[in-house]
Amino acid sequence: MGRRPGARVTIRAIADEAGVSVATVSRVINGRATVAPATQEMVRRAAQRLGEASVSVPGGQGAAAGAVFVYCPYMLTDYFGTIVTSVIETLELHGRQAVVHAGVSERSRSSVSLPDLPRRPGIAGAVLVLPPSSTEELAALHARHYPLVVIDPRAELPEDVASVSAAHAAGARRLTGHLTALGHRRIGFVGGPQDWLASRNRLVGYASALAEIGILLDPGLVRHVEEPTADHGHRAALSLLDHPQPPTAVVAFNDKTAAGALRAARSRGLRVPEDLSVTGFDDSELASSTTPLLTSARQPLEEMGRMAVSLLMRLVSGHAVDTLHVELATPLVVRESTGPVPPAGRLSRPPGRTRPAPR
Amino acid sequence: MGRRPGARVTIRAIADEAGVSVATVSRVINGRATVAPATQEMVRRAAQRLGEASVSVPGGQGAAAGAVFVYCPYMLTDYFGTIVTSVIETLELHGRQAVVHAGVSERSRSSVSLPDLPRRPGIAGAVLVLPPSSTEELAALHARHYPLVVIDPRAELPEDVASVSAAHAAGARRLTGHLTALGHRRIGFVGGPQDWLASRNRLVGYASALAEIGILLDPGLVRHVEEPTADHGHRAALSLLDHPQPPTAVVAFNDKTAAGALRAARSRGLRVPEDLSVTGFDDSELASSTTPLLTSARQPLEEMGRMAVSLLMRLVSGHAVDTLHVELATPLVVRESTGPVPPAGRLSRPPGRTRPAPR
Repeated sequence: MGRRPGARVTIRAIADEAGVSVATVSRVINGRATVAPATQEMVRRAAQRLGEASVSVPGGQGAAAGAVFVYCPYMLTDYFGTIVTSVIETLELHGRQAVVHAGVSERSRSSVSLPDLPRRPGIAGAVLVLPPSSTEELAALHARHYPLVVIDPRAELPEDVASVSAAHAAGARRLTGHLTALGHRRIGFVGGPQDWLASRNRLVGYASALAEIGILLDPGLVRHVEEPTADHGHRAALSLLDHPQPPTAVVAFNDKTAAGALRAARSRGLRVPEDLSVTGFDDSELASSTTPLLTSARQPLEEMGRMAVSLLMRLVSGHAVDTLHVELATPLVVRESTGPVPPAGRLSRPPGRTRPAPR
Repeated sequence: MGRRPGARVTIRAIADEAGVSVATVSRVINGRATVAPATQEMVRRAAQRLGEASVSVPGGQGAAAGAVFVYCPYMLTDYFGTIVTSVIETLELHGRQAVVHAGVSERSRSSVSLPDLPRRPGIAGAVLVLPPSSTEELAALHARHYPLVVIDPRAELPEDVASVSAAHAAGARRLTGHLTALGHRRIGFVGGPQDWLASRNRLVGYASALAEIGILLDPGLVRHVEEPTADHGHRAALSLLDHPQPPTAVVAFNDKTAAGALRAARSRGLRVPEDLSVTGFDDSELASSTTPLLTSARQPLEEMGRMAVSLLMRLVSGHAVDTLHVELATPLVVRESTGPVPPAGRLSRPPGRTRPAPR
């Protein structure tokens, strides 16, 4: 397996070692796009085993293995930034560089074509984070045997495309159950963008926790935001609080929308948690920075990144992967923004009054 | 400049086109580390101009130019995530891939050696974000003519190493001046890690705004946090509020420490801004998510990323760069957390009382 001092390894030797044709080795060395990534990997590793560093293989000397493309078409803040950081750290543990695409600008979006990914030389596979791609695009990539793993799929994926996500329904159910255990019966829900799988699963979890105590979901208590930001959460929560029979608690899509709900509560003169309970989701830094601190559900973002890379490495090596769809638990983190349901009648007041009537 | 149909371009032709020796071209093709990145670039571009795609050059087909290494040894959240996203977007506009190193794990730190960067094939240069490297390490890289730009230097840099930073002193001076204009005279300061250049510059700005109205900095009103988090900010602010003569305003290192100060105010029964004014820095999403919304100074993070890439591209092409140190303005963003100084005497109370005495 070592290098014979002074000897240059031939293309033929690599071909024999890798079990492919000389023509294939030549194509890999010349960076031709017609060679499947898995085959490129085999040739690359064969060259390594023979100790041949003087043969230039895409990825080259010092980059012992093909890089991995990390596709995250968003700003790398909090949620996405944490996932991508974990993916990068784990890739480096596997000796692979991370080529990262991130950002939301128009030009940025058009600069990366997912169907063209297999043509990029030196890239062994990809991790896609909440990809906006259509199911057909992903299926097409997968059909070409391109190693890929999706983190937090936005929509239902083809059965055999590997994915890692958080247990959205279970987390929402747990948060809502925490509120019903505190006596709340009228619980508002601020969901995320309606076309997001995560959003639909959260609604399912919320509804099931209500069903567990015999309450039917009331559409009048459900709002959805276009973007999961504090501002959007603020508006959605105000709308809920202006309901003739306002909720005594609000389950918000994430910590940012929950922060907006805290603001809405304050502007209506409501104390949190005494007059209104609020829950977030993600357990981001924001949850430990608001006043009061947010009760939330932890998204295991670091674990999602690690797990995705682990799955991808097995796909790249051609190993069998038993579980293609991994769902990670979203534990409840109880802080200060939730409390017992206020005594009946406190919040049934005509709209416009900013303080509850003294009892 | 075009490709002669059917003809393969020889190493000699590339050497002639690039103005280097045949041996040099051969070394570049074989990914040898002994060739300076700028030379690799010239060879690569010469090969391109000759239309030679069958010659494998690190970077390879489809990657028209060398990738850029983005070194950001932190979690990619908010501040760092925004900078890195902008760097990636701008690199892609220049047709370059971004190989990203991020994260804070022990193994992660040891997996990248800055002095070894020039040995990585296919990498044309680097952008370093708040690098913990010593001045000597950076000077050494620069002495090898390795194209690099530092964003937000942690310490003073060698004169001729390009950098982009925010105007920290000016921003802090502006925030403090905003407070003195509102009548505040006892203004607390929560600084960042003391060895950070940004931290020292903020203190300078704060002190100069005080000096402008004839007030000497009072060390009793200055605290520093080990880490710029909400928790650390909370503790530092409590310490300031427990002073026998507490401040009527707090200038916090960033929005996170400011959020901690909001929490500290609440736990001492103080209303913000009526009893205490608080300012942050960064104008991050957090500043628009707290209650009340934070007065802050905007760090032009996206512009810092764009500017750094712009500088780097000129260094990589060997163009002259007139201004090596770019400082971008940090405009004041006034929101809800600052207000006029409370009437005298309101906060001079014995420690332990949670509410100010009624007047």
